[in-house]
Amino acid sequence: MQFHHNGYVSQDPRELSPAGYGKNRTQDLPGELDVLIVGSGPAGMIAAAQLSMFPSVNTRIIERRPHRLELGQADGIQSRSMETFQAFGFAQEIAEEGYKITEMSFWNPDPNDRVKIVRGARPIDDEFGISEFPHLIVNQARVLDYFARCAQRGPARIEPDYGWTFVTLEMGEGEYPVIAYLEDDAGRPSQVRAKYVIGCDGAKSRVRKSIGRCLQGDQANHAWGVMDVVADTDFPDWRTKCAIHSKAGSILHIPREGGYLCRIYVDLGVVAEDDNGKVRETPLEEIIERANQIYAPYFVDVKMVAWHSVYEVGHRLVDAFADDPSHPRVFLTGDACHTHSAKAGQGMNVSMQDGFNIAWKLGHVLDGRAPEQLLCTYQEERQPAAQNLIAFDKEWSTLMATPPEELEDPQIVERYYVAAEEFAAGMMTQYEENLITGSASNQALAAGFPVGKRFKSHEVRRRCDANVLHLGHQHQADGRYRIYVFADSAQPGQQGRLSNWAARAREILAQFTPEGADENAYFDVKVIYQQTNHHDYEVLDAPALFRPRNGKHSVPNWENVFNALPGELDVFKARGISREGAVVIVRPDQYVGAVLPLDDPAAVGEYFAKGLNRVRP
Amino acid sequence: MQFHHNGYVSQDPRELSPAGYGKNRTQDLPGELDVLIVGSGPAGMIAAAQLSMFPSVNTRIIERRPHRLELGQADGIQSRSMETFQAFGFAQEIAEEGYKITEMSFWNPDPNDRVKIVRGARPIDDEFGISEFPHLIVNQARVLDYFARCAQRGPARIEPDYGWTFVTLEMGEGEYPVIAYLEDDAGRPSQVRAKYVIGCDGAKSRVRKSIGRCLQGDQANHAWGVMDVVADTDFPDWRTKCAIHSKAGSILHIPREGGYLCRIYVDLGVVAEDDNGKVRETPLEEIIERANQIYAPYFVDVKMVAWHSVYEVGHRLVDAFADDPSHPRVFLTGDACHTHSAKAGQGMNVSMQDGFNIAWKLGHVLDGRAPEQLLCTYQEERQPAAQNLIAFDKEWSTLMATPPEELEDPQIVERYYVAAEEFAAGMMTQYEENLITGSASNQALAAGFPVGKRFKSHEVRRRCDANVLHLGHQHQADGRYRIYVFADSAQPGQQGRLSNWAARAREILAQFTPEGADENAYFDVKVIYQQTNHHDYEVLDAPALFRPRNGKHSVPNWENVFNALPGELDVFKARGISREGAVVIVRPDQYVGAVLPLDDPAAVGEYFAKGLNRVRP
Repeated sequence: MQFHHNGYVSQDPRELSPAGYGKNRTQDLPGELDVLIVGSGPAGMIAAAQLSMFPSVNTRIIERRPHRLELGQADGIQSRSMETFQAFGFAQEIAEEGYKITEMSFWNPDPNDRVKIVRGARPIDDEFGISEFPHLIVNQARVLDYFARCAQRGPARIEPDYGWTFVTLEMGEGEYPVIAYLEDDAGRPSQVRAKYVIGCDGAKSRVRKSIGRCLQGDQANHAWGVMDVVADTDFPDWRTKCAIHSKAGSILHIPREGGYLCRIYVDLGVVAEDDNGKVRETPLEEIIERANQIYAPYFVDVKMVAWHSVYEVGHRLVDAFADDPSHPRVFLTGDACHTHSAKAGQGMNVSMQDGFNIAWKLGHVLDGRAPEQLLCTYQEERQPAAQNLIAFDKEWSTLMATPPEELEDPQIVERYYVAAEEFAAGMMTQYEENLITGSASNQALAAGFPVGKRFKSHEVRRRCDANVLHLGHQHQADGRYRIYVFADSAQPGQQGRLSNWAARAREILAQFTPEGADENAYFDVKVIYQQTNHHDYEVLDAPALFRPRNGKHSVPNWENVFNALPGELDVFKARGISREGAVVIVRPDQYVGAVLPLDDPAAVGEYFAKGLNRVRP
Repeated sequence: MQFHHNGYVSQDPRELSPAGYGKNRTQDLPGELDVLIVGSGPAGMIAAAQLSMFPSVNTRIIERRPHRLELGQADGIQSRSMETFQAFGFAQEIAEEGYKITEMSFWNPDPNDRVKIVRGARPIDDEFGISEFPHLIVNQARVLDYFARCAQRGPARIEPDYGWTFVTLEMGEGEYPVIAYLEDDAGRPSQVRAKYVIGCDGAKSRVRKSIGRCLQGDQANHAWGVMDVVADTDFPDWRTKCAIHSKAGSILHIPREGGYLCRIYVDLGVVAEDDNGKVRETPLEEIIERANQIYAPYFVDVKMVAWHSVYEVGHRLVDAFADDPSHPRVFLTGDACHTHSAKAGQGMNVSMQDGFNIAWKLGHVLDGRAPEQLLCTYQEERQPAAQNLIAFDKEWSTLMATPPEELEDPQIVERYYVAAEEFAAGMMTQYEENLITGSASNQALAAGFPVGKRFKSHEVRRRCDANVLHLGHQHQADGRYRIYVFADSAQPGQQGRLSNWAARAREILAQFTPEGADENAYFDVKVIYQQTNHHDYEVLDAPALFRPRNGKHSVPNWENVFNALPGELDVFKARGISREGAVVIVRPDQYVGAVLPLDDPAAVGEYFAKGLNRVRP
């Protein structure tokens, strides 16, 4: 966290100074604005939080509800989302209040007495060290609260405008071509004109309908009874995540934050085509009764039901993620694009990555740093991610719904669960080569940072204060690219490959940086030396690129010089980085954009020439 | 963090439901109240935060300033304070914004050119693993903000009453015997009557004066020029804590939070007796000039001075910590009791322990759970702690002020620094046997938890969710005693020593717990099994004492059953706990109250009979 360089900060440094549209934010919705976000769910709120870091962009987020979300809905936080929360500054805080999944229990019918269940395998949750962050359970309402705080503390000071219903939109002309028709909480019509609209309005999205897109997929729905309960029970795994298959049906059992609450998903099976919503009338008492049959021989005496619902859902994917894929103005995210079961705990997580992806790109285009074509990469990147999600969820939910006696091998469910961990954690997304994702031609220089996948953090030592830090955790969601320069083996301070690269790269990066801005306004550039003893060199040995001058007093930034830790903790070893050095570019959304050689500084310019505008010669 | 057992909590679970005096808190100061805290510095604010957990106690905290502290003052947070912050729920958050000290650099005159300094030793900060928490630098204003948030979120909803000046007090009669004379921000006199007053009003304490106590000690003062600066510099250790001794004088150099700011203490020497405050007029320019001479050959080009001061201080200790040590009504804390140099970074830390110590005791006496004699232990415990602090600081500041050429061995300073680490971290405080600190007669049963010292946490595994947690971090500053029952080697679930102890202890603890309160309202009792594989037993194997029923639905609390980790991480090995078992009682302020054998449940009753009231037969 950096502060004090633009004047002394006495209060919470997480509250950034207001700027641009954050300075005199009106209560009323303006008639014209840059970005209209429709819906304050996970995709919408992360988009608002991200766009709050772009105060020159006039962003508004509307929500039909008159107030914040209070109850229910999603609760699974995969480790990829935790990494994202880290960039938004609240991973530790939310981890402290969430339930941390460490292992899972599988329960199956007792072979000797099939009306009882017995415990089977208990695989641990992150067997392969996919992330340094835990897999968490916490109510969606709290996730939204944290993003709301980010949006409110960002320089653009964005807060949801509650009580506004989106009706429809049509395409006009001029600078603000999208005409959005809204209604206030008294049903009075209103309209705003926007440059761009992000539809985050859920499975029944009106934004989707208004641009003529539709969901395609399953004919039939699957129904679930879900309840958040406080109970007295002798079920021994009450505070462990469980998949329970009994003769009486199956349950996904998710302990919740706070030590007492538990979420129980009771499988109600495939809905008949002529059901017409009757399944949704299943009374709570019936769900509790059904649950008790499944938990037998254990009892679950429900004392309080905080929330419950019966819902039906199919596997469906939208035909396109935007109105016009080659000149997009209206984007769809989250449940507006993809629906599926809740079983794998993916929905909220994938939705947030949708919102994160489109938001920084809109920020870059609207503040003038990137060309409009950047926006086409949204559909290119997120549609395949959604396709993979639906394929995975289909497989997983089918497996989970199959009665154990019909499985060839009862252990197949556990084995699939373990094998699928990396996907389930959100780490299998890999973007194809495009405007901002480079080729894999130099991948061998940094094999552990696959181009197109999220940057997997590792610990290094910061020279200036000898702190051991996760390199990836220095990446805040501030819209900047990161450039990690892994040095060659020369002694720090010597002229050579690194100093040549740094001198030339400094000139190149300046071409993309506006006159008058801090040197590192758009690029956060850090060097990581191979030398493992930080006493053997000084911060001042590093090239000037790594000590940019910041703030109104133009003082040096000391925090960009790092070195590897010794032994097995060495980032060069752990991530397979060449001892000749390598340059790893990470996009604002934490995905690896490129791996480049240290002897080719011009390649940096070639990479950025696609995704950014050159503003100076 | 436990919640949802008294109804669903949708918003931040750290905000507790208001109760008692927190329900209808008046804006005006009431004429009669239980506890009046004078001063909102570190001692006062921690006391307010602690008493906010006692909503049946009417507490007010007054502050002369019209608003929160904005700048300056203390900034060193020893790891003992971090442990305390953890109990108040903000250790992680404050660590994220603070500067973490990992090592220290000593600079001395270059033997070849004595007008220049050269770097000497660089000892690491916590060489001996004194605590799992870091040694932090963060502005006092932020520490106070965090405690203010705790006080405001606690059930008693305490907020400082700003703009009130304490004038004096006198002792009257009746239920509210202390008459405090105050003035509001317009100078209008007012008075309130209190049961107890805590004087947290600094070195010039009027509370101290009003009870006839005075500081005793040094005749002469030592002067310091101190400034918080943002600078351009080539001093290589700009972001490392340094003790600099040069021919031109000495500096204590403390990097500050945020990456750019640095605090510089310039030693201005012993103040002549006839100085009459002239030293305090030393101009800022002179201090900056002096600093540059000391940093030579490096330059420090100061761009912004956020705060500066010249202050003089001597080593002084109050003659007593309360008005009447045998029937105390007025207590002194922090700088009102002890003054010394800032060199060892002790002041704020020791003051907070003062405030913590008296606050929970007042809470216990005023809510009826403890006898009034408990309050006598405040002076018994904190006076020796202050004495030790002053002795340590005298030695350290003398050593730091000695020109290197006068030292027998120039490495003596570094060696002293390393040897004194445990004291400097705040961990050497050990309370003598008294009402709430037992004898050391059973110490051998748990050698690593010395009676009278703070409970040194260790990691264990919680059975119900397989989470690896620091046992000590489950101890929130909620006023409850902790009882850690380290089991004997019997298989969990077997009848024997543990089950006998638990059955009898449950009856004994009930004698001290009010009718109708949760079973664990006053005692948080946890079992730690020796078995290192949590799959070998169930939560339900533990005696009923460890599954108390909580909240309005009286549902079981699953989170009190733990087991040791394997190998070197085994708490039994790491803390020298007998394989026959041991009971460790920890006071509400995290100090070990007693170590007792597992075959003597009656000893638990004997321990609590002194510090608590028996309310049921």
